[in-house]
Amino acid sequence: MFNIPALSHAGDAEIQHRIDHKTKPPGALGELEPLALQLARVLGKEAPAIRRPTMLVFAADHGIAAHGVSIAPSAVTTQMVHNFLGGGAAINVFCRQLGYELEVIDCGILEPLPPTPGLVAQRLGAGTGAIHLEAAMTQAQVTQGLALARALVARHHEAGANLIALGEMGIGNTSSAAAVMAALTGLPLTDCVGRGTGIDDAALANKRALLARALALHGDEPTSGQAQARPDPLRVLACLGGFEIVQMTGAMLAAAELGMLVLVDGFIATVSALLAVRLNANARDYMIFAHESEERGHKLLLAELGARPLLSLGLRLGEGTGAALALPLVQAAANFYNQMASFDEAGVTSVV
Amino acid sequence: MFNIPALSHAGDAEIQHRIDHKTKPPGALGELEPLALQLARVLGKEAPAIRRPTMLVFAADHGIAAHGVSIAPSAVTTQMVHNFLGGGAAINVFCRQLGYELEVIDCGILEPLPPTPGLVAQRLGAGTGAIHLEAAMTQAQVTQGLALARALVARHHEAGANLIALGEMGIGNTSSAAAVMAALTGLPLTDCVGRGTGIDDAALANKRALLARALALHGDEPTSGQAQARPDPLRVLACLGGFEIVQMTGAMLAAAELGMLVLVDGFIATVSALLAVRLNANARDYMIFAHESEERGHKLLLAELGARPLLSLGLRLGEGTGAALALPLVQAAANFYNQMASFDEAGVTSVV
Repeated sequence: MFNIPALSHAGDAEIQHRIDHKTKPPGALGELEPLALQLARVLGKEAPAIRRPTMLVFAADHGIAAHGVSIAPSAVTTQMVHNFLGGGAAINVFCRQLGYELEVIDCGILEPLPPTPGLVAQRLGAGTGAIHLEAAMTQAQVTQGLALARALVARHHEAGANLIALGEMGIGNTSSAAAVMAALTGLPLTDCVGRGTGIDDAALANKRALLARALALHGDEPTSGQAQARPDPLRVLACLGGFEIVQMTGAMLAAAELGMLVLVDGFIATVSALLAVRLNANARDYMIFAHESEERGHKLLLAELGARPLLSLGLRLGEGTGAALALPLVQAAANFYNQMASFDEAGVTSVV
Repeated sequence: MFNIPALSHAGDAEIQHRIDHKTKPPGALGELEPLALQLARVLGKEAPAIRRPTMLVFAADHGIAAHGVSIAPSAVTTQMVHNFLGGGAAINVFCRQLGYELEVIDCGILEPLPPTPGLVAQRLGAGTGAIHLEAAMTQAQVTQGLALARALVARHHEAGANLIALGEMGIGNTSSAAAVMAALTGLPLTDCVGRGTGIDDAALANKRALLARALALHGDEPTSGQAQARPDPLRVLACLGGFEIVQMTGAMLAAAELGMLVLVDGFIATVSALLAVRLNANARDYMIFAHESEERGHKLLLAELGARPLLSLGLRLGEGTGAALALPLVQAAANFYNQMASFDEAGVTSVV
């Protein structure tokens, strides 16, 4: 469906030589060094540079949110989209500071907003089905969501972006994400379910119970150690996903297809990253993991993807805020690679 | 000597109320929230903002470097200062990217450079004495170094800076820093001594042996659990310090005295921070710890200061690179505090 080229490693020796001969001890720039290697692979080894970084915030509502799994009612999704469009949310502040283009995508919030600059309507419905009672959506909605996201990313690529960051807003979406994580990984629900933006013990117990019902309903219970056929990500998306999770997955695949970098935010975005990688393993090479959130399952999810995130600031807000804050580090990796002098150029005694 | 006002906490309730009523769940911006509280305390609660951020890189040479404790010879200190002045080092790249003013201070490198724009000569000598054989410097040199640093910071304050970041360059300076750390904390040398920019096992054993001799020579051996009088930081600086360590300590105290924020880099800068706090405990309130470096003792040193650094990227370069990279996070904390809408302003259902 998505045609993602396997990233060539043919230039790696040359890239690593260039990194190692900068005026610093080998490895002294820590995580920025493998990041520079990745940037040079994806954007070219001559002068990799981030152009027109673009933050896409995908918003949608979730049927399960009416069943006591969140600190806030579904109405807050629309209210926060309104806040994004007014420029008053955390993601607006960080995008302005860091030079991102920002676009908000209505993937299916309960109450649609009138057309507004900065808002893209790509609605798959008015909230998903409650996943402990029915499927979140149909397979046709999944297909449509992936196609819409692909067109969206193509438009940003044409506008000159070579990096997209992805965030989300959707009351109830840690529930959907945790269910998808459990279905894809076979990990027990207790490892996948967390407090979202801050529910108490009773709500957490309720969230776990509802998600156990959801997994049972759709035949996705973990089989406690037994070998299991790898689940079909498209079926998992339809049964347990969210409209924003589908479109984020499609956006990541589309970006990789176009040779763009993908800056992945927290728990929900990382679930989409896992879906994308299960749909096409080559997508992994284009992903940069921005931060480790406070949400319980995120660490395990990052381990599943072999990812070491750049930041660990205890964020648990979503909206793409963690991805936003990591951009200067990505730019720093490109800049040291492009601009630092080599030992020869600077007349410094080589320590290599 | 330095007159640092104890930071008032009288406005804390008002500041925290403002943070908690932004359109996000309480605490959802993680480490940025206490950072915003600190910024509002230091820079004022109305609209705290970073002005003219200034990176000061202090360079000096160390007598002990001639005794096999580093991967590079002392000549590299001067070569790297030359590289800083030519704009080719990592710190130059990051300062250009992030909008820092950059100044390099020759505190006593072996071979002085001719006057050059961006270089400030505040030389206390041509390298310190080898601390396992003699005192690093005299008490008069310590006093002079603190005064020179104070004047330097006052100049930047007058130019409009309200944040200084501090970095260093000096072959052998992790040896001096580890000895100071051991003397101040009473921790065993094995906890304080690391590989610097990358020495092998044999050089590490040699480094430890020389530093044990240095501590014994100056009467600073750990007394294995016994109560010990708190050592005089000025004496420790003279016996075991470095010219850049003295001036960084003075710069931190001077910045706090002037109500400026201090962005602390890695291991060596953090040793200076500990010296500054031991000289005047009020200095701690003005400090922001930028990153946890790979150097062995850094984690313990941060714990000693009750500090939780913003970044952990495996850096071990010095030059102020970790401090440089943390600036966007400090700015993000100020920006969310100043610019985010409250629940009331945005018409979002409060979750507080």
